[in-house]
Amino acid sequence: MKRIYTGKTKDVYACEDGNYILKFKDDMTGEDGVFDPGSNTVGLQIEGAGKAGLRLTTYFFELLKKNNIPTHYLSANMDEAKMKVVPATSFGDGLEVICRYRAVGSFMRRYGKYASEGQTLDGFVEVTIKDDERGDPPISKEALEMLHIITPSEYDQMVVLTKEISAIVKAELARKDITLYDIKLEFGKNQAGDIILIDEISGGNMRAFKGGQAVSPLELTELIVEKV
Amino acid sequence: MKRIYTGKTKDVYACEDGNYILKFKDDMTGEDGVFDPGSNTVGLQIEGAGKAGLRLTTYFFELLKKNNIPTHYLSANMDEAKMKVVPATSFGDGLEVICRYRAVGSFMRRYGKYASEGQTLDGFVEVTIKDDERGDPPISKEALEMLHIITPSEYDQMVVLTKEISAIVKAELARKDITLYDIKLEFGKNQAGDIILIDEISGGNMRAFKGGQAVSPLELTELIVEKV
Repeated sequence: MKRIYTGKTKDVYACEDGNYILKFKDDMTGEDGVFDPGSNTVGLQIEGAGKAGLRLTTYFFELLKKNNIPTHYLSANMDEAKMKVVPATSFGDGLEVICRYRAVGSFMRRYGKYASEGQTLDGFVEVTIKDDERGDPPISKEALEMLHIITPSEYDQMVVLTKEISAIVKAELARKDITLYDIKLEFGKNQAGDIILIDEISGGNMRAFKGGQAVSPLELTELIVEKV
Repeated sequence: MKRIYTGKTKDVYACEDGNYILKFKDDMTGEDGVFDPGSNTVGLQIEGAGKAGLRLTTYFFELLKKNNIPTHYLSANMDEAKMKVVPATSFGDGLEVICRYRAVGSFMRRYGKYASEGQTLDGFVEVTIKDDERGDPPISKEALEMLHIITPSEYDQMVVLTKEISAIVKAELARKDITLYDIKLEFGKNQAGDIILIDEISGGNMRAFKGGQAVSPLELTELIVEKV
């Protein structure tokens, strides 16, 4: 296996059969040791974070499969914190699609003049460009079309999928009395040209609260996934 | 007359007849003495800048009137650098609508990963919130609707007006071999509830180039408006 990409929280390897392996690392985004799913830097390392992320991702990807939502997931090797996935091409160098149920994080940093911290947002979707250098700027459907990053019809499909997936995750969390504040998803196109969910769904890319307290990524896995 | 608002480049006074006076100041946006129409701070002061801004604004608002495009303009007093306007309510605390013909300024700071400096953009429209504290963040139609700042149909009308107005300004500049790179407009609603152009159209809110050189706001007035 050849490593083809080194990410902040995952490395990517190419398999001989044409598929890929995502190796979940113990690195987490944040700053100065404090976890922040909205951050663009590795801020801390927690032993077991990679495996916990993979456990929850596998749980959600299998749940999505039951709901007929396409993802890049093929199989997981928990002991090695590795997930096997189908090839997918990203939109441009990658987009992040955020579904917001509460006004927090970058939403408040941008629109705090018109919103109050934590207010309900009813699954509001926005898209940002993956660009560390420019701080992941938000981008409109019109700009995405003009810059040939994604077509308007692909954009609409991506937004519909985002709302469906986020609603499933939100409902699943609610079963354990956990409130989903926001979640960040990534999409790509498989070899047939269909839009599929890629990357992961774990505590590392969402904000979850229980009893008014933030639930850490490792706690979230423990609360959601049954012990085997 | 009572001053009701002190802006960066203009002050606003209430008239007894229910209309308003905009007093154009010699202050210009920019930093460290360098003019920048995209800046949020007063960076320099040039004697005559206020009057030059009013002369060009009057010129364009009268041109727009001939083209049946509604503005808040009533009359101008050049000697006092004052413009009389009808009352208008802004959308929220104010929006800026940018029409881009070339990729420069904040567009490149956000989307430089996918665009090259100065590339043609064909009148691309984007909206930002007037919010100095948060650096005038861009905002989508969907977010504007959700935050109750402007309705989708008002947004669409505003974009149509922006394209019409910008095309008129661009064509007028082209007659003097000047290229319009981008222009920033503001809109409000008059007492009948119609969307009208407010604020100004001058060198202070656009980027114009002639022979590859930036045209300063004062030069622009001299080049466009016939001497009387």
